[in-house]
Amino acid sequence: MEKAIVLLSGGQDSTTCLGWAKERFECIAVSLNYGQRHVAELEAASKIAKHFDVIHIVENIPVLKSIGGSALVDGSDLAGSGGYGDSQAPGGLPTSFVPGRNMLFLAIAGAVAVKLGAKHIVTGVCQTDYSGYPDCREVFIEAMQQAITLAMPSECGPFQVHTPLMRMTKAETVRMAKAIPGVWEALAHSITCYQGVKGGCGTCPACTLRIKGFADAGFADPASA
Amino acid sequence: MEKAIVLLSGGQDSTTCLGWAKERFECIAVSLNYGQRHVAELEAASKIAKHFDVIHIVENIPVLKSIGGSALVDGSDLAGSGGYGDSQAPGGLPTSFVPGRNMLFLAIAGAVAVKLGAKHIVTGVCQTDYSGYPDCREVFIEAMQQAITLAMPSECGPFQVHTPLMRMTKAETVRMAKAIPGVWEALAHSITCYQGVKGGCGTCPACTLRIKGFADAGFADPASA
Repeated sequence: MEKAIVLLSGGQDSTTCLGWAKERFECIAVSLNYGQRHVAELEAASKIAKHFDVIHIVENIPVLKSIGGSALVDGSDLAGSGGYGDSQAPGGLPTSFVPGRNMLFLAIAGAVAVKLGAKHIVTGVCQTDYSGYPDCREVFIEAMQQAITLAMPSECGPFQVHTPLMRMTKAETVRMAKAIPGVWEALAHSITCYQGVKGGCGTCPACTLRIKGFADAGFADPASA
Repeated sequence: MEKAIVLLSGGQDSTTCLGWAKERFECIAVSLNYGQRHVAELEAASKIAKHFDVIHIVENIPVLKSIGGSALVDGSDLAGSGGYGDSQAPGGLPTSFVPGRNMLFLAIAGAVAVKLGAKHIVTGVCQTDYSGYPDCREVFIEAMQQAITLAMPSECGPFQVHTPLMRMTKAETVRMAKAIPGVWEALAHSITCYQGVKGGCGTCPACTLRIKGFADAGFADPASA
């Protein structure tokens, strides 16, 4: 079985992706502590990795908080939108956008992959429900896959970045989670909420999206049980 | 004048690039502390930024040391070659190769650029003398430029990664340094040596390359004076 580095935030999407990857690869889960508002999601990631019986690596990347510019790392209002930079505020972009986050995550996944002899990287980014984040689009993932491959010795690659949820709605993701062994139970540990509330605050944009997904799919959220 | 983020390691190449950039852009120098063997180069970077009278940002990225896999960050023998991963050792790659370093550096530069409203990034990577590092090649830089642009809101870009030294020999870089006002004096502060020796140890691969460059160009190294 080939190895895969799976980016695991501890949320619904990455948990589902880890289950997807577990059926195909020998998985190593990687979580990144970038100074997000709460560490509850890192604790969730740890439980989920244990549930799937995979190695779990947690790396610290203080640079995102240090650069700042997002409500997820600088403590500003998450309900607002558009203000992730002092001098630039393109209309409509949520304040939860962390510039460079997925680029940095994938670059680190690439470095870990080389170290561990993996050629596969799995991430739960999704273009459909992408909330306006440019670094969740397929076109970005393809560019980054190319950059990772070219950054590394040719003998180590080519690297493939898998995005099983890319074209799915949240409801489809829920149905996929239901179909893969072990994922439903793992979802009970997952935390999607921007406030870090176990079971969800129910009102933040991430919770709203999650609630709608489970409702559309016609299932109760195992994390709310 | 448009803004540029200049990656400044404190070595010869990035110092020359900062001088090049200073003639074209309003520059912000960014240095990255990734757990390299010595902090002497970060102190050099600070002096060089001061010399050019530019803002200097230092960010910590412990993740490279944590992942390990290079003699520059894990304390192994710099003279050896080929062993940057436990399970993979493509022949001939120096142990000083840090997998993902330039990718991470450029991703961070991109995030800083968005925060500060810059669309230009300058780096001293060089394909000619690239020592076998895949992430110093033009083809990688182009892929990364594309990835940065796609990772960010379109209103913030497109981003341009400038590599003024890409096709130069070290001797040509020395002549370029001589021709740009202020660079020669700044080079007196620069440290290229892998051992962090001010003036150079004279024997490590980085010193050997630097010495040959100055000799070929027919000038004395201002850092050795």
